[in-house]
Amino acid sequence: MDGALPLVRLVEQFARLPGVGRKTAQRFAFYILNQPEEKAREFAQAILDARTKIKKCSICGNLTDEELCPICAAKERDTSLVCVVEDPRDVLAFERTKEYNGVYHVLHGLISPMDGVGPEQLTIKELLARVQAGGVREAIMATNPTVEGEATAMYLARLLKPLGVKVSRLAYGIPVGGNLEYADEVTLYRALEGRSEL
Amino acid sequence: MDGALPLVRLVEQFARLPGVGRKTAQRFAFYILNQPEEKAREFAQAILDARTKIKKCSICGNLTDEELCPICAAKERDTSLVCVVEDPRDVLAFERTKEYNGVYHVLHGLISPMDGVGPEQLTIKELLARVQAGGVREAIMATNPTVEGEATAMYLARLLKPLGVKVSRLAYGIPVGGNLEYADEVTLYRALEGRSEL
Repeated sequence: MDGALPLVRLVEQFARLPGVGRKTAQRFAFYILNQPEEKAREFAQAILDARTKIKKCSICGNLTDEELCPICAAKERDTSLVCVVEDPRDVLAFERTKEYNGVYHVLHGLISPMDGVGPEQLTIKELLARVQAGGVREAIMATNPTVEGEATAMYLARLLKPLGVKVSRLAYGIPVGGNLEYADEVTLYRALEGRSEL
Repeated sequence: MDGALPLVRLVEQFARLPGVGRKTAQRFAFYILNQPEEKAREFAQAILDARTKIKKCSICGNLTDEELCPICAAKERDTSLVCVVEDPRDVLAFERTKEYNGVYHVLHGLISPMDGVGPEQLTIKELLARVQAGGVREAIMATNPTVEGEATAMYLARLLKPLGVKVSRLAYGIPVGGNLEYADEVTLYRALEGRSEL
């Protein structure tokens, strides 16, 4: 099999995907070999298309293959409410709730001095420009509840508040369907703190 | 994101891989987007190359990008000992032991009437031709210890024995490093049966 270089190379490529080891990569490669050639072509083309055609929305930084992402291009969205997220995947997560009608701002990362990521590498300048241009009523800090997520939210709040915009943060609490027994104490404390009247 | 069709298509392609769900496929797709374009091209090319250049070895049916697989092409292998396996992956597994010096015959499947796979869809004809051509001393049935694997081994043994070739089967027993407590009773019984003197 050492001689079947194209196969070895494909296994190597699959093994580079996040969370994929040698065995899984091998399974993927054999799946490709067992597909009709047409299907393998489609797969290869999809990789090229995604990499070459996808770019960032010129307003919010979300991924799109046009000038504006479908959310910024939609007329019925409330552009005065901006949900600030780390990643385009977070946009997908919020869109799945089908409840949020505002728009987004994708930071493409979080401030993380340990990884050498400072504010200037994120789309913070663009966010400030959006707010300064007017029309934004509230900015929701929807970064992950990690150290970096919190720090980035705090940093942004300090920049945005002087511009006269309301800055809010996602609620902390017990996940729906979760189990109190398994909740960590910080989450429980936050859930207590944030309790609401019934 | 519904507008970013190239991305949706790439996620769909990844989700077709065995054992990959929507979330994992999404993670793979975002990995591709974050790669330099050159790397994405390499990935796409590896898929095409593997699918178009890899073929079956004309002797043993193992996968190769040349006429003969490296094992059949090697001069130092014992061609009188043929290990019959279901899949090219099984060849890799045996090669990793670094102890086997014979050659292989890859069936590319097992007899499975339930899945509509009969003997004629496998490379059984080619195996018989190899044995009839002479020079084969022993054929080791190295199919998986499943119903289909056993049935295929039995079927092949019945065909091969009249040709005057020794037919053997892999040993059953406790896996090295395994735990007796967790071994199923059939395996334990086979391990007892196959015990050897110390």
